[in-house]
Amino acid sequence: PRDVRYSCSSWMSDVWEFCKQDRNRVIFSLKVGLAVLLVSLLILFQAPYQIFGTNIIWSILTVAIMFEYTVGATFNRGFNRALGSVLAGILAIIVAQVALSSGLVAEPYIIGVSIFLIGTVTSFMKLWPSLAPYEYGFRVILFTYCLIIISGYRMGSPVVTAMDRLYSIAIGAIVAVLVNVLVFPIWAGEQLHKELVTSFFSVADSLEECVGKYIEDEGSDDPDFFKSVIDEFPDEPAYKKCRSTLNSSAKLESLATSAKWEPPHGRFRHFFYPWSEYVKVGAVLRYCAYEVMALHGVLHSEIQAPYNLRLTFQKEIQEATSQAAELVRCLGNDIQDMKKTLKASLLNGLHSSTERLQRAIDMHSYLLASTYDPMKDRSCRTVDKLSRAFTPTLSDLNEQLDNLESGEELSTTSIAQSTPSESLASQILDSYHDTMRKQCKRLHSWPSREVDTAFDHEELEGGFEANFIPRMKALESTAALSLATFTSLIIEFVARLDHLVEAVDELSKLAKFKDEIL
Amino acid sequence: PRDVRYSCSSWMSDVWEFCKQDRNRVIFSLKVGLAVLLVSLLILFQAPYQIFGTNIIWSILTVAIMFEYTVGATFNRGFNRALGSVLAGILAIIVAQVALSSGLVAEPYIIGVSIFLIGTVTSFMKLWPSLAPYEYGFRVILFTYCLIIISGYRMGSPVVTAMDRLYSIAIGAIVAVLVNVLVFPIWAGEQLHKELVTSFFSVADSLEECVGKYIEDEGSDDPDFFKSVIDEFPDEPAYKKCRSTLNSSAKLESLATSAKWEPPHGRFRHFFYPWSEYVKVGAVLRYCAYEVMALHGVLHSEIQAPYNLRLTFQKEIQEATSQAAELVRCLGNDIQDMKKTLKASLLNGLHSSTERLQRAIDMHSYLLASTYDPMKDRSCRTVDKLSRAFTPTLSDLNEQLDNLESGEELSTTSIAQSTPSESLASQILDSYHDTMRKQCKRLHSWPSREVDTAFDHEELEGGFEANFIPRMKALESTAALSLATFTSLIIEFVARLDHLVEAVDELSKLAKFKDEIL
Repeated sequence: PRDVRYSCSSWMSDVWEFCKQDRNRVIFSLKVGLAVLLVSLLILFQAPYQIFGTNIIWSILTVAIMFEYTVGATFNRGFNRALGSVLAGILAIIVAQVALSSGLVAEPYIIGVSIFLIGTVTSFMKLWPSLAPYEYGFRVILFTYCLIIISGYRMGSPVVTAMDRLYSIAIGAIVAVLVNVLVFPIWAGEQLHKELVTSFFSVADSLEECVGKYIEDEGSDDPDFFKSVIDEFPDEPAYKKCRSTLNSSAKLESLATSAKWEPPHGRFRHFFYPWSEYVKVGAVLRYCAYEVMALHGVLHSEIQAPYNLRLTFQKEIQEATSQAAELVRCLGNDIQDMKKTLKASLLNGLHSSTERLQRAIDMHSYLLASTYDPMKDRSCRTVDKLSRAFTPTLSDLNEQLDNLESGEELSTTSIAQSTPSESLASQILDSYHDTMRKQCKRLHSWPSREVDTAFDHEELEGGFEANFIPRMKALESTAALSLATFTSLIIEFVARLDHLVEAVDELSKLAKFKDEIL
Repeated sequence: PRDVRYSCSSWMSDVWEFCKQDRNRVIFSLKVGLAVLLVSLLILFQAPYQIFGTNIIWSILTVAIMFEYTVGATFNRGFNRALGSVLAGILAIIVAQVALSSGLVAEPYIIGVSIFLIGTVTSFMKLWPSLAPYEYGFRVILFTYCLIIISGYRMGSPVVTAMDRLYSIAIGAIVAVLVNVLVFPIWAGEQLHKELVTSFFSVADSLEECVGKYIEDEGSDDPDFFKSVIDEFPDEPAYKKCRSTLNSSAKLESLATSAKWEPPHGRFRHFFYPWSEYVKVGAVLRYCAYEVMALHGVLHSEIQAPYNLRLTFQKEIQEATSQAAELVRCLGNDIQDMKKTLKASLLNGLHSSTERLQRAIDMHSYLLASTYDPMKDRSCRTVDKLSRAFTPTLSDLNEQLDNLESGEELSTTSIAQSTPSESLASQILDSYHDTMRKQCKRLHSWPSREVDTAFDHEELEGGFEANFIPRMKALESTAALSLATFTSLIIEFVARLDHLVEAVDELSKLAKFKDEIL
């Protein structure tokens, strides 16, 4: 019994958590209860029951089927239900009159054929893509038609049946709509607004989290790629949110569809509020999120730039990232508060820090480039050729060049790197090669299948460059290039942000957001 | 009237096309018509009507609501409907007995409160994530409960009402299931199978299309990024399909849910066929598709590697891509034909061509790296320092070094490039700088907003590297690095393919695919 009590209390706390997460859930449930109760009262009390009769049962069915989470969705369903019922009623009355006038023998045949046709046509129409949102309406047409025409056939006048049924459906619909709108309404528009704002923040969070991990993480080896690609990443909460953003297009669209049915309310005071613009902004944001997904892919790919190399660009990457994330958050806040602010200074900052990142990559691109260094090759040759010109002092020169070489390496690095001291630079270079060696073991596992046989095969055949440079170096270079990929993706993200800013501008114009005076 | 006739005939041809695309649509529609007709016959004929009475109307409602596209979904809905009805019936009978035994005054109160509670609890439960698939079942419980208990209250014995209603619901459900299973069944499993296979092909097509465009396309300027990112890409049919693959997770999941309800059928002969494995393979495939999306992003990004640079790697890129696409198609075919084939040789080929691509990028990385060439800087310095050592022959040496320099440029290039002749190499280098210059105009438009003010600002402040290298060069380098990004993404795609192969292997093991003897 203790186990039971424990699991029961943990279950209770789960439910409590679930309610606390979104108060609207409880409100919605209570509202459904209320609406059903109100309709039932029409039967439970003697007076209304005597007026409406047993047909009032249909209003209960209507409430149960029509009551949706948001006001807009309820209106939408109500519209489907109402139009479907009316159309079905009209059709049924026409067909019933035709059947009646055609005599007793033909009547059931006409009714049967008409039912078959209605069933076929409505089912076909609801598969048509542009009519798919009205799927429920077609179902309503089908069963209302069948019910009216068959009750009419068996129980007399179809017009009376149709009318009675429409009355009670109308009563159910009115109760459902009134309860939904008047008692703590849950507006689809409000939900859509929140959803979009949340997406902005989750993209920003996820970007920062991903880049943060890329820079901080001293390659906490995660060899199980499969797991890491498919799994839940328990240590990356923002990533999960961002991924759900990617799949939110359907949700945004259905909310926007519902929101269009809603009257002006709350903060959305003017008619024809541009809800579809929200979907567009969501789409642009999703295209930014694709870049974050690609960044995440690089973060978890098996070929990694060595930690020290990443460290070299840490400052620039972090600056650009944090400014990009700030811009995204700022856009999210603007939408949240329904105001326009000038993003010029933020954009300026972002663009110049992206420029700095570009330049940093540019200047250090020899680090990213091959360790098969054309430079070394060339200086050897230079020495070679020089040796022919100045034979007597060859050994001297050679020595001097060597000295210069090693000295130069430091100086170029220190020029290129604006902040770190010379010693740090050399340290970085040293540990760069160090890490590389360590990394090799890891890299060797890639590509993981039958590679060695592939190489043997290749080498036997004498594949065109097989022996030209050691295989390891190719991997090293690819590893270093993964840093280039990472930064390119950040830059691409920033480029897409421009269009996100434009989309939000467009939204704020159409939705008449307040100008914020700075 | 000619307009009307024209639009009518175009509408007809649209409908015809729609039917031809998927014959199942027509079959489904006709089946619904048939099912409704069969149920109606129970009323239209005198004999069954006398047995079942008016309650038979409920079977029509059941058919209309329960009939779904696939067999599995119909079973699923039927299960919801049946269980919901039974639970509601039991609950209603219990509550009705309690209410009856508590006297005439308390009865309506008890009924009212119970309706409110049922409404609240079912609505709350269907919001619970793990119960969300049974949403329809909760709706059924709610309205069936209300109908039974209220008809019971007004029209006498609730047990009789409940039983009558359950009979007629059962009849409707049986008709719906029989028609759905026996007349041209549309199996969710079959649909899922096809859907997954199609996804494989669309990812392969899209990869080839994207890479093909990247290589062939002589930068047909597409300056309107916003349009190009959001729009439909009418000239890229495969991309559209691939994008729809990304959004297909919900579809695959719902098909798999339905497929689990289906008995063994057609090619899926054994019980507990691993439908959920299909969803997993779909997820891994989607992670490959993300890379294709990223490739597509690079293809349409504003900063582009010059055409000639892309041309340099054309052979390697195309080889790796076409082998990767072939592997994906081969996996798709294996699933389609439900067989296992050895992918070793394909994998070997793919890995070695990816290796070649890596090596090619590696060896040419100086092309990708900065045009701010640390090498040049160094040789200048070398000259500088040498000049102190060998003052007398300075001008001679200078000249010679200059000659060597230009000669060297060619020779390194020709060493690095294994195939092209020297003249081609120099030509490429020339036109590389040429294209770069052309490209600059385009690049200048990026970042498109207030950049110039940003730079002014920066330069006034004396930003840390603002004057260190010309801005244009940073962009040039980024442009060249975009090629590195592109190839890295291809390599990452290949790396993910390994895991796709694993996932498909797992599927073929669990689903007992036939071994193909080679």
